[in-house]
Amino acid sequence: MALQSLTLLFFLLFFLLLVSSSSALVQDFCVADRSLPQTAAGFACKSLNKVTIDDFTFSGLDKPGNKSALAKVSFNAFTVDEIPGLNGLGLTLGRIDMDPKSAFPMHSHPGTTEAVLMVQGTVTAGFISSTANTVYSKTLNPGDAIVMPAGLLHFVVNSGNKPASAYVFLNSELPPIQATSLALFQNDLPTDVVQATTFLDAQQIKKLKAVFGGTN
Amino acid sequence: MALQSLTLLFFLLFFLLLVSSSSALVQDFCVADRSLPQTAAGFACKSLNKVTIDDFTFSGLDKPGNKSALAKVSFNAFTVDEIPGLNGLGLTLGRIDMDPKSAFPMHSHPGTTEAVLMVQGTVTAGFISSTANTVYSKTLNPGDAIVMPAGLLHFVVNSGNKPASAYVFLNSELPPIQATSLALFQNDLPTDVVQATTFLDAQQIKKLKAVFGGTN
Amino acid sequence: MALQSLTLLFFLLFFLLLVSSSSALVQDFCVADRSLPQTAAGFACKSLNKVTIDDFTFSGLDKPGNKSALAKVSFNAFTVDEIPGLNGLGLTLGRIDMDPKSAFPMHSHPGTTEAVLMVQGTVTAGFISSTANTVYSKTLNPGDAIVMPAGLLHFVVNSGNKPASAYVFLNSELPPIQATSLALFQNDLPTDVVQATTFLDAQQIKKLKAVFGGTN
Amino acid sequence: MALQSLTLLFFLLFFLLLVSSSSALVQDFCVADRSLPQTAAGFACKSLNKVTIDDFTFSGLDKPGNKSALAKVSFNAFTVDEIPGLNGLGLTLGRIDMDPKSAFPMHSHPGTTEAVLMVQGTVTAGFISSTANTVYSKTLNPGDAIVMPAGLLHFVVNSGNKPASAYVFLNSELPPIQATSLALFQNDLPTDVVQATTFLDAQQIKKLKAVFGGTN
Amino acid sequence: MALQSLTLLFFLLFFLLLVSSSSALVQDFCVADRSLPQTAAGFACKSLNKVTIDDFTFSGLDKPGNKSALAKVSFNAFTVDEIPGLNGLGLTLGRIDMDPKSAFPMHSHPGTTEAVLMVQGTVTAGFISSTANTVYSKTLNPGDAIVMPAGLLHFVVNSGNKPASAYVFLNSELPPIQATSLALFQNDLPTDVVQATTFLDAQQIKKLKAVFGGTN
Amino acid sequence: MALQSLTLLFFLLFFLLLVSSSSALVQDFCVADRSLPQTAAGFACKSLNKVTIDDFTFSGLDKPGNKSALAKVSFNAFTVDEIPGLNGLGLTLGRIDMDPKSAFPMHSHPGTTEAVLMVQGTVTAGFISSTANTVYSKTLNPGDAIVMPAGLLHFVVNSGNKPASAYVFLNSELPPIQATSLALFQNDLPTDVVQATTFLDAQQIKKLKAVFGGTN
Repeated sequence: MALQSLTLLFFLLFFLLLVSSSSALVQDFCVADRSLPQTAAGFACKSLNKVTIDDFTFSGLDKPGNKSALAKVSFNAFTVDEIPGLNGLGLTLGRIDMDPKSAFPMHSHPGTTEAVLMVQGTVTAGFISSTANTVYSKTLNPGDAIVMPAGLLHFVVNSGNKPASAYVFLNSELPPIQATSLALFQNDLPTDVVQATTFLDAQQIKKLKAVFGGTN
Repeated sequence: MALQSLTLLFFLLFFLLLVSSSSALVQDFCVADRSLPQTAAGFACKSLNKVTIDDFTFSGLDKPGNKSALAKVSFNAFTVDEIPGLNGLGLTLGRIDMDPKSAFPMHSHPGTTEAVLMVQGTVTAGFISSTANTVYSKTLNPGDAIVMPAGLLHFVVNSGNKPASAYVFLNSELPPIQATSLALFQNDLPTDVVQATTFLDAQQIKKLKAVFGGTN
Repeated sequence: MALQSLTLLFFLLFFLLLVSSSSALVQDFCVADRSLPQTAAGFACKSLNKVTIDDFTFSGLDKPGNKSALAKVSFNAFTVDEIPGLNGLGLTLGRIDMDPKSAFPMHSHPGTTEAVLMVQGTVTAGFISSTANTVYSKTLNPGDAIVMPAGLLHFVVNSGNKPASAYVFLNSELPPIQATSLALFQNDLPTDVVQATTFLDAQQIKKLKAVFGGTN
Repeated sequence: MALQSLTLLFFLLFFLLLVSSSSALVQDFCVADRSLPQTAAGFACKSLNKVTIDDFTFSGLDKPGNKSALAKVSFNAFTVDEIPGLNGLGLTLGRIDMDPKSAFPMHSHPGTTEAVLMVQGTVTAGFISSTANTVYSKTLNPGDAIVMPAGLLHFVVNSGNKPASAYVFLNSELPPIQATSLALFQNDLPTDVVQATTFLDAQQIKKLKAVFGGTN
Repeated sequence: MALQSLTLLFFLLFFLLLVSSSSALVQDFCVADRSLPQTAAGFACKSLNKVTIDDFTFSGLDKPGNKSALAKVSFNAFTVDEIPGLNGLGLTLGRIDMDPKSAFPMHSHPGTTEAVLMVQGTVTAGFISSTANTVYSKTLNPGDAIVMPAGLLHFVVNSGNKPASAYVFLNSELPPIQATSLALFQNDLPTDVVQATTFLDAQQIKKLKAVFGGTN
Repeated sequence: MALQSLTLLFFLLFFLLLVSSSSALVQDFCVADRSLPQTAAGFACKSLNKVTIDDFTFSGLDKPGNKSALAKVSFNAFTVDEIPGLNGLGLTLGRIDMDPKSAFPMHSHPGTTEAVLMVQGTVTAGFISSTANTVYSKTLNPGDAIVMPAGLLHFVVNSGNKPASAYVFLNSELPPIQATSLALFQNDLPTDVVQATTFLDAQQIKKLKAVFGGTN
C-alpha cells in the first residue's frame, strides 16, 4: 500500500512536470486575445492564466434580438466576437425571430454551412443550388430543422400566422453574411452596372437604392 | 427592348449550357449515398436527380429522445446517419433531456467541438483542460450556452430541481462519443490493466464492470 | 570504379524495390476515374497504368468559347470534368470573352477564389464585400489582373468599345457558379417569396421569370 | 406602400446593426499587413478601413519579366508579396517568357500545383512522377495547357524556333521554388556529399559549383 | 562554351533575383518565434537570417527522461516547445521508458494520432474505440509498433519482467495529453459531480483526490 | 443502492442504444479496405466487424530492411500499404540502415515532413531550403534527431566509420519519394532536355542513364 502511494505520488509529480514544462503554451484551445491583430487563421491566444469559463459561455439566447417598433425580424448571433473561446473552433450559435408575414432576406454565408432548428411557428425555408438553379425548400414546424449547404443562397419566410423563432448554428466562428439586396442596392455600384449584371430594370434599381441608401 | 430580350435569352442559354456541361457532377453538396462504402473523407455522393429537400431536413427535435421508465437522461442526435445531406458539411444537431438530479456522463468527442444551448432547467456544465487538469464549469440557465473545445472531457449535471433540456450542436457530421466509464468498464479490458492505468481499486473496477457488462 | 557501379546498381535495385512494393498505389496524383462515384473529397483514382499525359493537358484556350449569333459573352472553363488529372489538386483554368457593351453577370463561386487576367480590351471588374456591402472595383486593361475573394459576389463589365478577353483561374477543380439573377428567376421559387426576401417588385420579378424561364 | 417602406427601412437598419456589431473584424478576406510578422498560416490582416481595391489588383502581366541582354528566360510572378489581398486565398499568377532554344530549369514547388497556359510559341513541358520515375510530357502550342501536380519535378523547354510565352497559375499565395541545379550547386554543400547523394562525378559538380557560385 | 557560361550566369542571376524579391518572406518553413504570441494556427515565424540548423535538430532521445527514485515510467517528448522548426509541420518525437510492472496511464491526445515503436522489453498496448467500447490491444516486443487513432483512450503496460522502452511519434507539433485519472482527481471538480458522471463510489473518488492533490 | 443500479442499467442501455443506432458507420478510424479503389483522400473503410488489432500493428522494425550483398543502405517503411489502420491518419514509420561510407540519396517527399532519429553510428544529415539554396545540416549521433521540412531536398551521409541506423517518421500515411538522380536518369527523358534543364554535361547524363537504366 505504501508502495502504491509512492507510485501514485510519482504519477502526480511526473505529470506535473510534464505540464509545467509546457505551461506557457496553449494546447487545448486558443482563446482570442482581441488586443492583438486578427490573422487569416483567426486570433492570437490569450495567455492561459487569463482564461476563464466566461471565455466559453454566453447568455441571452432565450430572448429575441433587438427589435425596433418597425422590426419584423431579428437575428442574434454569438461569434468569436462575443465568445473569444470560439477562436479556431469553427462554430457560431444564434437565433432568429420573425413576426407573422415577415421574411429573412435572401443571403449566403461564404464558406459556412448553417442549420436552422425551429422552436416556434411555421416557416418556409430553403436554399438554391447553383446546378440548374434548383430550389430545395420545405415548410418547417417546431422540432424541424434544415441544413443550408455552405455558400448557397438561402431564405426563411414566416408562412404561418404567428411569430416564428428558430435557433441557428453555423460551422465557422466568424461567418460572413452576404445579403443579395444589400449587396446590390446599398452601395455606390452604378445603376448601369447593376442593370447589366442582373437584368433588373433601372427604375427598380433606383427605387431600391433609394430605400437602402445606395447611390449612383 | 427586343434587343434586351435577346440578350436575356442568350444569358439563359449560356448558363444552361454551362450547367449541362457538368450536369453529371455534384458541386454544391454531396448527399451521402449510403449504398456505397464509407471513406475516411465521408460518403460517396447520391446522384443529383435523386436528391430532394428531405435529404437536408429532419424532424423531432421538439421532443426528448426515447426515455425508458428508468431513464434519467436522453440524447437525440441527427448526424449524417439520419441526414444524408450533411455529408462533408461538418455539422450535427441534437438535444439532451435530463431528469432532476440526473447527470450526463463524462465523455469526449474526438476531433469535434460542441456547443450546448439551454432551453429549460438549470445545469452545471463544464470541461476539463489537459493543461494542469483545470476545470472550467458554470451553472447554466435557459438562454445560456457553453462551448466544449474539441477532444476534451466534459460533463453536464442537472443541478436544479426540474427537468432540464438543451440543444447541442457539434461541428462534425459523424462525431464519436467516448464515455469514460463505458470505455473503462464495458469491455474485456482486464481489471489489472484498468487498475494499473487508472489507479482505481480492483474492487471498484469489478463492481462497475458488473454493472456495465464488462468482463475480465 | 567497378565498385561505384555496383553501388549504383544497388541504388537502382533498391529504389525499384521501393517502388514496386507500393506499385499498386497512387502517391503523386489521383487522376479521376469517372466510371466510379464522386465523393465529397473528389473522385476515385484511375489505376496508374492507365494514366497518360493527356490526363493532365488540354487544348483550346486560345479561342473564345462557343458564341451563338446572339451571344455577347462566352465562358470556357476546364475543370476536373475535362481534365481528370486535376482531381484533388484544386485548380481550374478558363477564359471569358465579351463583346463590346456586354457584361458578365453578378455571381459567386462558393468556397473558391478566382483571379481574372486581362488579355484584350478594357473592363470594369469588382466584387462586393459583405462588410457594409462595400464595392471594390477597378478598370482593367491588358496585363492587369484582379482577385475575387472566395464566395463573394463579383462582376465584369466590358467598359470599352472593343471586345474583351481574359483568362480566369480558380483554386478548385470543380467550382460552383451561382448567378444571382438565375438563382432568383430561373426556377419555381414563388414570386411572393422572391419579393419578400429581396424587396424587388412583383412585376419586376414576373418579368424576369418570363425571360429566364422561371415559374410561379 | 408606406408600410413596405418602413419594412425596408428596418431591413436596412437591421443589417447595418449586424454589420456594425462586428465592424472591427475581417470576415470576407484578410489583406496582409506586412508590417506585422508572418505566421505559419500567413499574415495578420490589415484593418478594414485601410483596404482598397489596389490590395486585390496588379498590373504588368502583359509584358515579359526583366530580361538582361543575356537572358533567355524570364519569370514574373505576383504572390502575396506583391498582392496583399491574396493572403490566405491560395493563389499566385505569373508568366514565363523563353527565347528560342532556352529552357526553364528543372524544379519543384513544394505543396503547390501549377498550371501552364501557352500563349505564344511551342514548348515541350512535363513532370516526373516519383512512381517508377515516369516522365509525363507533351509538346504544347498556344491555347494548350498542362498541370504539374504538387511537389513533383517539372520542366519547360522551348522546342520551337520562336520565342515562347505562357501564363502560369499556382494554388498557393507564396509558392516556394526549388531548382534542382541551384539546390545542388549554388551553396556550400561539400562536393563529396553531392557526389555521394547524386552519383554525379566530382569534376561535374565542381564545374557547376564554379558556374553557380557554390563552394566546397 | 562561353555562350553556355553566359547562359549559366544568367540562370544564376535570374534565380538570385527571384529569391531576393521575396527574401523577407518565409516559404519553406516557419520557425517559431517564441517572443511573439501563439495563435490558433501556431507561432509567428522567426526571421530567416536568424534561422539555423539548431532550430531543426535536438538531442537526448538515446536516454530515458528524468526518473526520480520513485519513478517507474518516464516520458520525454520534443515538441515545437523544444524544436521551434516544427512550427506548422505537425510532428512530435519522444520516448517512453517503463520499469518492470509499471504502466503508462490511460490517456488520449485530442486531435493527434500516435505511433509507439518498441525498442526494448515487452509491453501490452492498446486503445479503446468509442464504438461499443471495443478494446484493441496486443503484446509488443522490440521492433513491433502500434498506431493509436486520434483522440481515443489508450494505454501501455509493461507486461514483461524487464524494463521497456519505446519511441513515440505524434502527428502534431504540440499534442495535448489528457490523462483520465488526473482529469478526474487532480482538480477541484466536486466529488458528487465526479460520482454522478462516472458512477465511481464517493469513497474511491476521495481516496484518489487525496493522492493526486484534488479537492472538493 | 437498488436505485443506483437501475440508473447504471439505464446508463448502459442508453449508450448501447446510441452505439447501435450508428453501428454500421465508422467514427473512430477508417481502416483501409484495399479491395476498393483508392481516392484522392485515401481508401474506403473496411467494415467494423472485420477490423482487428492487426490492422493497427506491425513488426520488423528491429531489423534492417533487405540488403543484398552489394547493398550499402536499406530503407524499411510501414505505410498504409502495410498498415491499413493508418488510412486517413497521416503517419508512416520506418528505419534506415547505412553501411560505413554509404549515403542515402538526395530526395524529397512532396507534401510530407520527416523526422530522422539516430539509433546507431554517426551521420551528416541536412536539407536544402529553396530560399537562397541554403544548406541546413548537422552531424548526428545516437539520440540526435533532425526535422526535414515538407517537400525540400534532403540527404543523409554515413560520416562515421561504423554502420548507422535511424528510425524515420513521416506525417503522411502514403508519402511519395522523389530521388533526384532517379528522376533525372532512370527514364526516357531525352538527354538534351536533362542537359538544358540542369546544365549537366551530356556525357555525364549519358553515363548515369546507362547506370540507372535510362534511355534517350
